[in-house]
Amino acid sequence: MTSSRAARFGDAFLAVDWGTTNRRVYRIEGGQVVATDRDARGVTAVPADGFPAEIADLRARFGDLPMLLAGMVGSTIGWRDVPYVGVPAGIDTIAPRLGWIDDRTAIVPGLSFRDGARADVMRGEEIQLLGAIAAGLVPRDGLLCQPGTHCKWARVAGGVVVDFTTAMTGELFALLRGHGLLSTQLGGTVTPGAAFRDGVAAGKRRDLSAALFGIRASKLLGQRDDSDAASYASGLLIGSDVAVRLESGAGDVHILSDPELGGLYAIAVSANGGTPHVVDSHAAFAAGIIALAQALGE
Amino acid sequence: MTSSRAARFGDAFLAVDWGTTNRRVYRIEGGQVVATDRDARGVTAVPADGFPAEIADLRARFGDLPMLLAGMVGSTIGWRDVPYVGVPAGIDTIAPRLGWIDDRTAIVPGLSFRDGARADVMRGEEIQLLGAIAAGLVPRDGLLCQPGTHCKWARVAGGVVVDFTTAMTGELFALLRGHGLLSTQLGGTVTPGAAFRDGVAAGKRRDLSAALFGIRASKLLGQRDDSDAASYASGLLIGSDVAVRLESGAGDVHILSDPELGGLYAIAVSANGGTPHVVDSHAAFAAGIIALAQALGE
Repeated sequence: MTSSRAARFGDAFLAVDWGTTNRRVYRIEGGQVVATDRDARGVTAVPADGFPAEIADLRARFGDLPMLLAGMVGSTIGWRDVPYVGVPAGIDTIAPRLGWIDDRTAIVPGLSFRDGARADVMRGEEIQLLGAIAAGLVPRDGLLCQPGTHCKWARVAGGVVVDFTTAMTGELFALLRGHGLLSTQLGGTVTPGAAFRDGVAAGKRRDLSAALFGIRASKLLGQRDDSDAASYASGLLIGSDVAVRLESGAGDVHILSDPELGGLYAIAVSANGGTPHVVDSHAAFAAGIIALAQALGE
Repeated sequence: MTSSRAARFGDAFLAVDWGTTNRRVYRIEGGQVVATDRDARGVTAVPADGFPAEIADLRARFGDLPMLLAGMVGSTIGWRDVPYVGVPAGIDTIAPRLGWIDDRTAIVPGLSFRDGARADVMRGEEIQLLGAIAAGLVPRDGLLCQPGTHCKWARVAGGVVVDFTTAMTGELFALLRGHGLLSTQLGGTVTPGAAFRDGVAAGKRRDLSAALFGIRASKLLGQRDDSDAASYASGLLIGSDVAVRLESGAGDVHILSDPELGGLYAIAVSANGGTPHVVDSHAAFAAGIIALAQALGE
């Protein structure tokens, strides 16, 4: 980072939360989101050499401004592979490690965790996590959860991310729904009712492989209707995930999510003895990217 | 069962272990297997009205003899849906509950388990389990394991099956290998080496959803080579399965399997404090169907 680059992000800029299949664009002025839009131009929809044109198009639509890009755009399947920043990491750790495309276009690095036995990575979620802290949406010390295809569980301390774990809970649900033995049973809508709660309760055993087969057996023996199977399976997967994460002590869990998925995780957190708090993940992202832009200007 | 039917199975008969994708045919004379063959004519390869022709063909090839059919041939996707027999169940419980197609052709019922919280079913494995007991390949009281797409864990007591659990361990591996985030990493051969054992060790945490994502993260951070990923993932899935099953006390585990898959389960059983004994599953099936035929003649 140079001061000439950093100064450009002072007042107005664009930010993109650029994921694998979707992206959300924000125009920010004076520390506020003044425009935002979401589309399906995730990195897998953009050819390897197509990013300059995408950026030009976004500037044409949202303003010819400096841009900060976060998420999978900085990965091997994105525009440029920007090296991970190891935890512990906060806004001030990330700011000097941006991947600069040019003087007014930069990619935010993801975070990595590693010890002898375990490795983990994130790209994009770090901005939500640190934004939620910066905006006071969550405390500076605590357990944060970002549900999704690859659910992130982050431990923050002193306002920085110190440890995190990714659970491919949403992906497992999608795999089971799309293929194999249970696919014909899991087509229904997941609702936060009794079947979901039954699944969460069963998930406490952390015996996914057997509990999933039980969905098939329960149908064959007439014990559970297929209309409930998707909710039960979702409860089972989310419940297993939550049960492991709260094993060493249940307490406050701050869930950064849309209300629907956040509500499901909140049920599972409560069922495992924790206290859920659902936080708007879009507000957290905006707060994080604003905090990062401010750090660049300092 | 009538004595006129039963008497026909006294000396020589054919038996088919008829699964979803494969089947194995045995010609049995005087209590011995005198011919056997395996093909890919599982029930999903046979049209709904095609079973009489299949049977006629098998009799033309192996002898015009009475037949006992076990496995998915007795399910809703087979020839006729033969009702499950609830546990506890032994050979004498099953013998009067055969589904008779005609006076010399019968389908063996599967077993079911149910209590308030849990339901389970099997079709075909019961003959292996009870055959292993009848032939003295396993004790009359103990824990038996049948690895596979849907791994069965059966508790036998006094020579009958009293409880069992199915874990869809093999199916989860196939889903992960065939689709989604890890599919490009899991194409390798599973071998019983260090990576498999690392997976078994990680499986003890029973945190499948996160440990699976770790396979991706380890690659991105250069901690594990893709050539090891399939073995590690297999170890993780089998290790989780075994860890849950031995949670309430490790001891002898009798594994009815082919040597290769049986060897992998044996490693996981040992790593979780149990003592594995691998038993030939084909010998067990033959012993079981012979014991059943003898029970029909009594």
